[in-house]
Amino acid sequence: MPVPILKQGAVLIASIQTALTDTDVLRLQDKLMEQIGRYRSRGIVVDVTALDVMDSFVSRSLRGIAHMTRLRGAETVIVGIQPEVAFAMVQLGTSMEDVHTALDLEEGLALLESLGGEAERRGGS
Amino acid sequence: MPVPILKQGAVLIASIQTALTDTDVLRLQDKLMEQIGRYRSRGIVVDVTALDVMDSFVSRSLRGIAHMTRLRGAETVIVGIQPEVAFAMVQLGTSMEDVHTALDLEEGLALLESLGGEAERRGGS
Repeated sequence: MPVPILKQGAVLIASIQTALTDTDVLRLQDKLMEQIGRYRSRGIVVDVTALDVMDSFVSRSLRGIAHMTRLRGAETVIVGIQPEVAFAMVQLGTSMEDVHTALDLEEGLALLESLGGEAERRGGS
Repeated sequence: MPVPILKQGAVLIASIQTALTDTDVLRLQDKLMEQIGRYRSRGIVVDVTALDVMDSFVSRSLRGIAHMTRLRGAETVIVGIQPEVAFAMVQLGTSMEDVHTALDLEEGLALLESLGGEAERRGGS
């Protein structure tokens, strides 16, 4: 099932509803990269609240999305990683170290906003 | 083919039109460093929109240019990294972490402007 992407001002919100196949993940990646260009978005929030399992392919792809987004001049925040998913990720040694994360959508949007302001103050570094 | 460098106010714009040989890249680097001094530029925008491949030498050189520019007291923004180029860079683990990136020329110039303001607020440091 394709992941719906909502446009909210300068932010794209990808809300993952069900477990993703590898194809879904790659399609999400392509769609996000294309829409960043089209809508000149400043940030992406990927909401994984509905995921109760996050395998290594999905988490690697999310990190990939975050890095690509940065190369295109925007920022990504992953929100809603469930406690048991976080537990499993730590056990498996999957890190999201270089990716912004937040508790939920609201916190994620606030984080993006502060990143934007910060980027302007510091110049995006 | 040498890369044309346009001077727009306090900013130099290097617009890469075709795939670059290693010699072209080194020549671009020298020319930018020389012109920063001559025109007392505050920033450089390198537009890579036309590149559909960015090999490790080119991306390393662009990072080098960004670092050198900073040592000369100016800032560099790389703009127009294409989605497929971003994808390949992430796959290959080529990072541009310490370099400013923006979606296109317009965003790049806006970013440089905000960087300039920041530098002035902080006293040019």
